[in-house]
Amino acid sequence: MKIYRYPTKDTWADLIERPVLKQEEISGIIKEIFQEVAKNGDRALIEFNKRFDKAETGSIAVTPSEIEEAENRISDDLKQAIREARENIAQFHAAQDQEIRKIETTRGVVCWRENRAVEKVGIYIPGGTAPLFSTVLMLAVPANLAGCKEIILCTPPDKNGKINPAILYAAKICGVSRIFKTGGAQAIAAMSLGTESIPEVYKIFGPGNQFVVAAKEYAQRFGVAIDMPAGPSEVLVIADENAVPEFCAADLLSQAEHGNDSQVIFITTDLEVFNETIEAVDRQLKDLPRNEMASKSLENSSFILTDTIDAAMEFSNLYAPEHLILAIENFDQYTAQVRNAGSVFLGNYSCESAGDYASGTNHTLPTNGFAKNYSGVSLDSFVKKITFQHLSREGLQNLGKTIELMAEAEGLFAHKNAVSIRLRS
Amino acid sequence: MKIYRYPTKDTWADLIERPVLKQEEISGIIKEIFQEVAKNGDRALIEFNKRFDKAETGSIAVTPSEIEEAENRISDDLKQAIREARENIAQFHAAQDQEIRKIETTRGVVCWRENRAVEKVGIYIPGGTAPLFSTVLMLAVPANLAGCKEIILCTPPDKNGKINPAILYAAKICGVSRIFKTGGAQAIAAMSLGTESIPEVYKIFGPGNQFVVAAKEYAQRFGVAIDMPAGPSEVLVIADENAVPEFCAADLLSQAEHGNDSQVIFITTDLEVFNETIEAVDRQLKDLPRNEMASKSLENSSFILTDTIDAAMEFSNLYAPEHLILAIENFDQYTAQVRNAGSVFLGNYSCESAGDYASGTNHTLPTNGFAKNYSGVSLDSFVKKITFQHLSREGLQNLGKTIELMAEAEGLFAHKNAVSIRLRS
Repeated sequence: MKIYRYPTKDTWADLIERPVLKQEEISGIIKEIFQEVAKNGDRALIEFNKRFDKAETGSIAVTPSEIEEAENRISDDLKQAIREARENIAQFHAAQDQEIRKIETTRGVVCWRENRAVEKVGIYIPGGTAPLFSTVLMLAVPANLAGCKEIILCTPPDKNGKINPAILYAAKICGVSRIFKTGGAQAIAAMSLGTESIPEVYKIFGPGNQFVVAAKEYAQRFGVAIDMPAGPSEVLVIADENAVPEFCAADLLSQAEHGNDSQVIFITTDLEVFNETIEAVDRQLKDLPRNEMASKSLENSSFILTDTIDAAMEFSNLYAPEHLILAIENFDQYTAQVRNAGSVFLGNYSCESAGDYASGTNHTLPTNGFAKNYSGVSLDSFVKKITFQHLSREGLQNLGKTIELMAEAEGLFAHKNAVSIRLRS
Repeated sequence: MKIYRYPTKDTWADLIERPVLKQEEISGIIKEIFQEVAKNGDRALIEFNKRFDKAETGSIAVTPSEIEEAENRISDDLKQAIREARENIAQFHAAQDQEIRKIETTRGVVCWRENRAVEKVGIYIPGGTAPLFSTVLMLAVPANLAGCKEIILCTPPDKNGKINPAILYAAKICGVSRIFKTGGAQAIAAMSLGTESIPEVYKIFGPGNQFVVAAKEYAQRFGVAIDMPAGPSEVLVIADENAVPEFCAADLLSQAEHGNDSQVIFITTDLEVFNETIEAVDRQLKDLPRNEMASKSLENSSFILTDTIDAAMEFSNLYAPEHLILAIENFDQYTAQVRNAGSVFLGNYSCESAGDYASGTNHTLPTNGFAKNYSGVSLDSFVKKITFQHLSREGLQNLGKTIELMAEAEGLFAHKNAVSIRLRS
């Protein structure tokens, strides 16, 4: 834990520094994996499952009976919870759809945009320490709402060649077309290039380790789009004197348990809240199953005292956190000041977990400062917005001279001629 | 020109093949240019101007008097045309703004999105054979509408160290904050890293040659976002028996004159329209100042006869053209079939030039098949959509159990605890 009391502005640049990500030279490995998948298809994936996941997988595709079995293996309570989360996520993302607005910019010249789904999308769900079925919801629900025709999902099998049942259940009820047992860079290669079982897709979504991240970057050479660049998860909490230290501590820890490299920043104007939150973090940490991971990530965390909430907001905008919690009584007065953040949680009862799972907002958000230039995943991420225009004869007469003048000034006479020839006719 | 009469579907995959882009190994050069700019800043840019553009530029920044002088050097007619285009572009892009919708997904749980401008954006305008002041409009107008605080523009100087006056005029009236005389990969490096004169930006927009394209790709390593991946410009025209061959030919040529590598495809169901369009292309080509470039690009163009408009639409969706012209009488019946395209032009009077310059739609569009997974530039490109949520105490009571169940099933107990501790309080 790093403690900063009233740091002056000239020190802020250091405080917002993220730990430098190890840029290990793995591009050679990634290239080899892509080549192997291109050459041997499914056979390569089965082999990688053996090598990397110690799993025997006869077939890459998950069968309907495996999905049925999974459904029986999870509790009714959890199923009900997953369905409730799905409804909220669907509700919020459906509201992001924009009605078509036809604009007559000049008399007889009508322009508008229409959404069209990205036809084929791939979702990657990592294996590892947590079975992220919530990420299935966050990606498959908007894909389905957008009307994507083919929604496939890749995730690594466990040692018994199985997929976590909650992942299968979430995939099933969110309209995923097909599920495949393959993980890591090879899963990204398969979705980019296609194999006998796995269709190639136009856009790949989802989190992953450094190999997955590097593979998603590499996949773009094959014309595949990705959701966004990746980095470790982060939260920044701003608290005033009305914040509850126990709540703030719980939120900081829920971020810290994500991984060793998670980023946690706490800023308050109140000395008592400051001290009590630090104490509460220490106290709560002891009871956490993942306390080793959380402790590690807390080593890099910053606890900052500032004079004013305005200063805290300014600091936050410089840092551009993935998650921003405003544990401030009159948060309404401060939302307009938020310029760079992925998702914002307002007041004492809006914990980050709510958005991580079930409130309806998406949890796939820009990290590592990318909140300055990227949005989180939304319905928009699964559609293209295509512009349409219709000019009547009258419309072209009204606008033609302008187009001719501009085309001529750019020296593009065929552009001009496309207008002139119509005006003459 | 390649002629295909009623090609069977099994041959389509070959017909939609784009010419393979020369992937020359220029990454070494790009890296050196970035290093040079990082080390020597403005001095490096002045030196590159000498070396690459044969230009002496005492200072990199364009001065107010240069802008004033430019304004006097272009005709009132052109100024009026540029202002009219600006109004239409502003009208159409302003209509893309979405009002804030607060959604109560569960009683007491309210979620919404708010737009925030990308604070600093950079626009690149190439030099070369055409002074693309229209691209200044297409990028600066939505940047300004979005509320970007810093909108800078880089463009290479001519041999006299000057910038084309129409570019300066367009930049001035569209709210560009500052203009700099630097081009190529070094301009992209300067906007990514910053120099004494040029501020670093969060997102870079605009077209360019292979060095600029490679530099934009490289810039992403420094956390900078870019508008979209690039490729040669394209048009696909679908015509029925009511299309006007002279018009179709003019549209095809206006695409072909862009460059040697421009892609042009013509598809019709009518034999007469087919033959007459080919003749009209030959005839019109002769009178074009840029006919050498257009001829070259026509060598790779395809003229295709199909049985039905439906088949033509299917072909177009496979190809995913940047520009799609539907020179079809009852185009309304076909717009729903458009699944992959950048921008669509409907009927006999909606020439591509209209959208290139002045109708209001954006001309920065996905090429090279990227219309399958990317949208063109719009107001959205200049904002982040930040999600906000507020849970009341009651809201968390209603949703808490669901969050706890899901967090526990993912093995993330600190996430669960952030809810439990609040429910207990």
